[in-house]
Amino acid sequence: MGAATGVDGLLSQRGHNVGESRGLPGAREGVISFSGGFPDPARFPYTEIAEATARTMQTHGQWPLQYGPSMGYEGMLDFLVEKLGKHQGIQCSRENLLLTAGGSQALALLCDLFVDQGDTVLSEAPTWMGAGRIFRNVGAEVESVPLDGEGTRVDALEERLRDLKARGVTPKFFYIIPNFQNPSGVTTTLARRQRIVELAAEYNFAILEDDAYFDLRFAGEKLPTLYTLDGGRRVFYFGTFSKILAAGMRLGWIVGDPAMIGRMGGLKAEGSTNPFAAHVAFEYCKDGRLDARITDLIETYRRRRDLTLGELDERMPEDVTWTVPDGGFFVWVTLPESVDVQRLLPKAREAGLEFSPGPIFYFDGSGRHRLRLSYSYVEEDQLARGVQLLADLIREVSSEQ
Amino acid sequence: MGAATGVDGLLSQRGHNVGESRGLPGAREGVISFSGGFPDPARFPYTEIAEATARTMQTHGQWPLQYGPSMGYEGMLDFLVEKLGKHQGIQCSRENLLLTAGGSQALALLCDLFVDQGDTVLSEAPTWMGAGRIFRNVGAEVESVPLDGEGTRVDALEERLRDLKARGVTPKFFYIIPNFQNPSGVTTTLARRQRIVELAAEYNFAILEDDAYFDLRFAGEKLPTLYTLDGGRRVFYFGTFSKILAAGMRLGWIVGDPAMIGRMGGLKAEGSTNPFAAHVAFEYCKDGRLDARITDLIETYRRRRDLTLGELDERMPEDVTWTVPDGGFFVWVTLPESVDVQRLLPKAREAGLEFSPGPIFYFDGSGRHRLRLSYSYVEEDQLARGVQLLADLIREVSSEQ
Repeated sequence: MGAATGVDGLLSQRGHNVGESRGLPGAREGVISFSGGFPDPARFPYTEIAEATARTMQTHGQWPLQYGPSMGYEGMLDFLVEKLGKHQGIQCSRENLLLTAGGSQALALLCDLFVDQGDTVLSEAPTWMGAGRIFRNVGAEVESVPLDGEGTRVDALEERLRDLKARGVTPKFFYIIPNFQNPSGVTTTLARRQRIVELAAEYNFAILEDDAYFDLRFAGEKLPTLYTLDGGRRVFYFGTFSKILAAGMRLGWIVGDPAMIGRMGGLKAEGSTNPFAAHVAFEYCKDGRLDARITDLIETYRRRRDLTLGELDERMPEDVTWTVPDGGFFVWVTLPESVDVQRLLPKAREAGLEFSPGPIFYFDGSGRHRLRLSYSYVEEDQLARGVQLLADLIREVSSEQ
Repeated sequence: MGAATGVDGLLSQRGHNVGESRGLPGAREGVISFSGGFPDPARFPYTEIAEATARTMQTHGQWPLQYGPSMGYEGMLDFLVEKLGKHQGIQCSRENLLLTAGGSQALALLCDLFVDQGDTVLSEAPTWMGAGRIFRNVGAEVESVPLDGEGTRVDALEERLRDLKARGVTPKFFYIIPNFQNPSGVTTTLARRQRIVELAAEYNFAILEDDAYFDLRFAGEKLPTLYTLDGGRRVFYFGTFSKILAAGMRLGWIVGDPAMIGRMGGLKAEGSTNPFAAHVAFEYCKDGRLDARITDLIETYRRRRDLTLGELDERMPEDVTWTVPDGGFFVWVTLPESVDVQRLLPKAREAGLEFSPGPIFYFDGSGRHRLRLSYSYVEEDQLARGVQLLADLIREVSSEQ
């Protein structure tokens, strides 16, 4: 019998795996924030969403306010079937789709579907820090696969797979962000995508393809999704409205094998993904409005990327390097060996500058000479000052060595 | 290495525990539906929600459409602190609260916090069928505790606890719906609430208090919550806006120990519970509007309960009995031994009548002579015809014996 002072002794492994969360979003007043992967709030369609809500309340009957179907509002599923076919080149039908509370819930449901405590999974590293928390919640052991300028290092992936096989370990899946990766900004090439799909068949693992930034491509040609290359057999493709419509509506989707999609519907305890938000988003998106919005956003974020890259070129010390993303929100900066990002960060905060330090994107604490700049949330007229501040601080820390 | 035909061989225990879900809500056209616990769609505040959305878009800045704080929109948390103090008599502060996607996600998060595969939990039986699915998802072994007209049979609970202790099993929690229970309609008395809290301290288990129907009391005095009786130490109290505002907004809450609440925030993969819906709901609810709406809903559902009970009195065969709820949505009907609900159900469906058969509310398939009538979703002018249809079918099945 446990202590009489509380319920701490009763917690599950999940309950023990996580720490407390009290995180608050957003930047402090007057601070230049390159840290969060937040969409630009000046571009949210406030009036149009109010109008879409009014139309929804007038014309959709009870369903925006009632309990909904477990796979999500059918109008939105049909909209996604069309959108995915037209933009992503993914041919699917309603039964391949599950509506989720953003891409983060999509990844969590996939982890629930595949992972038991102690199972091994493969992930790009660096990768989205939210994935680390989700993997920890389910008690996964994560094997890291490094990246280079062409995306996932497939040679390293294959080596890892061979090692694991020799040790009798079958990884459940490989987690990949193929386009404008978070945090590195790099895009995995077609040849590498093909090789990853081959390896998945050869070694029998699933692929979790997180394509949160797909629609925000500024340069280069669209590449086929791993889902399409695989024929939708062992790839689960997921995306989100967070970057292209509004993060606060918490709407995303998973595309996959119908039986597996049905199982994830059963794992989704809260039932239908927010019918109110789903109906309003549908009412906003239809009639070409989402397409028009995406076109506008590409212009906004391309200009911001270009300005950021220009400022970096002009202001950074010579021994600092960075990636050039073809889309998305992120530039990944490599500092000189003499500059530890953990020494840089408190000085930056004191100076009114926020960025994301490298180690939060790795599973093993590496990345001490790297940082992520997210240009999506910084006003254009603040970019030059932000980059200058960062350059000055790098020089200062470097000179202290 | 598994089969090359797919990923079925890679599923987790959770993935295997659930079946596929493709459930669709709502009734067929022209059918009288006593089955779903759906709120009355004629009472949804369509226009007011459109107006609240317009105000929200004009006055809340970026936050309804942006990533939000992990514990939920603070304005709504503060609203709940006040509401819970005023109505439920629960004294708490913001740090005791987590906003969730309805009561169902609240229960799922509590299961994630406490339950590992194979752990034992205690639950009232009959109980909400959604709880059964959530318990199965986490691989819990469920021990049933029966009810009578005064709610949980605490003698049976204590006996079960003694048995389990003798077998060396520590149950993680007891799941209870104390007010107008789903499906039985009964309310657990104050004396029994006190005894349950004592037993929780003595045997060291948590209490999950699901109070989805609290606000919809038609008769009798409000009783103290188990949370209050326990002082908030080992009770987690949860509720929902689904019955008092709109199920489609998927908003609920958990009240509990701050450290445990913080852990559940960390387990909640999708981050902040729908900031868009949370801001709009807050904007709708404030300035006394939710209170006024609850007053109206009590009138609506009381009238519907009274009509249902009157029709049952008038039309049912003598050997049929039912409960008289002091609130909520449900009447629990006991059929004569000669009538198996599984024989009644297909005939009812053919005749255009829907209800929920007893066995879906039990963990062991019992309840074959019981059914739940939810009067919340049936138009007043359909109640008499619905009850008459049911009475006729009961007589028909009974005479076939």
